[in-house]
Amino acid sequence: MSAGFETRLTTIADLVEAALEALLSPQVRSGEVRRPARLLAAMRHAALGGGKRLRPFLVIETAALFGVKPETAMRAACALEMIHCYSLVHDDLPAMDDDDLRRGRLTVHKAYDEATAILAGDSLLTYAFEVMADPATHDDPFLRAELVRLLALASGLGGMAGGQALDLEAERAETPLNFDEILQMQSMKTGALLAHAVEAGAVLGRASATQMNHLLRFGQKIGAAFQVADDILDAKSDAATLGKRAGKDAERNKATMISILGMDAAEQRRDQLVDEAIAQLHALDLGARTDVLIEAARFVAGRQS
Amino acid sequence: MSAGFETRLTTIADLVEAALEALLSPQVRSGEVRRPARLLAAMRHAALGGGKRLRPFLVIETAALFGVKPETAMRAACALEMIHCYSLVHDDLPAMDDDDLRRGRLTVHKAYDEATAILAGDSLLTYAFEVMADPATHDDPFLRAELVRLLALASGLGGMAGGQALDLEAERAETPLNFDEILQMQSMKTGALLAHAVEAGAVLGRASATQMNHLLRFGQKIGAAFQVADDILDAKSDAATLGKRAGKDAERNKATMISILGMDAAEQRRDQLVDEAIAQLHALDLGARTDVLIEAARFVAGRQS
Repeated sequence: MSAGFETRLTTIADLVEAALEALLSPQVRSGEVRRPARLLAAMRHAALGGGKRLRPFLVIETAALFGVKPETAMRAACALEMIHCYSLVHDDLPAMDDDDLRRGRLTVHKAYDEATAILAGDSLLTYAFEVMADPATHDDPFLRAELVRLLALASGLGGMAGGQALDLEAERAETPLNFDEILQMQSMKTGALLAHAVEAGAVLGRASATQMNHLLRFGQKIGAAFQVADDILDAKSDAATLGKRAGKDAERNKATMISILGMDAAEQRRDQLVDEAIAQLHALDLGARTDVLIEAARFVAGRQS
Repeated sequence: MSAGFETRLTTIADLVEAALEALLSPQVRSGEVRRPARLLAAMRHAALGGGKRLRPFLVIETAALFGVKPETAMRAACALEMIHCYSLVHDDLPAMDDDDLRRGRLTVHKAYDEATAILAGDSLLTYAFEVMADPATHDDPFLRAELVRLLALASGLGGMAGGQALDLEAERAETPLNFDEILQMQSMKTGALLAHAVEAGAVLGRASATQMNHLLRFGQKIGAAFQVADDILDAKSDAATLGKRAGKDAERNKATMISILGMDAAEQRRDQLVDEAIAQLHALDLGARTDVLIEAARFVAGRQS
């Protein structure tokens, strides 16, 4: 990772943090206080103060390929990040992954309570669509409606939520998932929203059909690479470096890319996916403009590099 | 309730059921099977097979004031109903109201499991926005984006989800809610989405600012009347007629309109709200066209009449 890339990632993460802080501010512009305060506090706990903001970064940098300024893509980027944050809150619940810690902090149901965590997730999910549909997000209503539709597609039954359901089913099933089933589950659970980040950027940039096609494939490839990298990380790490219970997959006897392929082949697969992602960017023929996304692909697959 | 009104309510409920069935069909138009099957089945359990479909009815009948055909308002009506259905699934969860039965059937977490119920709720919520934003819902993208925004406003932090949070907080608090706090909580928890049903119909009908104003107030009044009627019903009924555990509010020592006002004053308040609602319709000066909504206001407040 180049120093330039690292700076850019941090700069945008700070901008996203500030934008989310404003969107989730306890006071609205009129000076009125947002209520209920406790529910809003739980939403803020879930959405503020952390993370690399990878999905917003991909929205903003993909839009930037087409000359769209970060501030123009920011609300769409925040809407998508809220969906990501809501999913973490619900995934951490006792009935799901039952996690007490997330990024080294208490999960929402631990810091508040279970009912509040469910409602905070619901409210973030709902607010994401309010933000996306608002005229402040973009002048063109067709584009706003399209961003809403695509975000919903990526995060619902056929995307993120469906992927989480498949993952939970697999944990409870007697037969572990086979390779294709793992790919399917991961492409829904994690891949769909990462791919949508790129898609949303392309929509904001009014990419041509050909450009959209390459960018969608780029998004899918980095989504897949991200998940392999995550499995590798989970297999290798311990709780100290991750800030959450690690080795969890092995503990649950869950089939992962690593348990099926072995570590070496998994790493090869990850690197190949990154290469394929980068090839899609080269096909755009936009010269140096794609350099940031090329580094982003490597970053996604490396996580700690 | 006139026989004509009853027929109209049933006819529209059947149309809504058919539309929801199509939207949640296991097969999509291409013949492909929607997956994951178990999550979709849980969504169908939550959304199909019952209810008076009051909110869709209000969308469709309000739009009809302005000559909009039921089929043109149907997708927006279904989107709103999905939000209502998701909220029931999450409200029934053990961490919230902990109900085993809903309309005489097992609640989703009882029929499936808790994780599936959380995800089914999330997926219905998400799908509602996908449906609303889709070009099939309306030709005008501005109107679609606006419907998304208003639906999100009615159902998120400042609306339904926030109201549920206040209701749960009240149950756990040492001091019961006072009258104004109950009004505030109810107007968010139940009123906002009912009022939005009328608002959505008015948006679809391209109501003028003055018309919108009267219709919004009509929606708020029937929302309030609905909740008082619900409290009255809860105080009077037993489990057999309601199909859910009744007398629950009393059991939990929860402050309700009835515990504060007494039954007589609560019934008076309900009737007054209905009168005020109807006055808003008269102010529209649309003659007999508002007759259905006048009956709807009485129906909302009566429930069993």
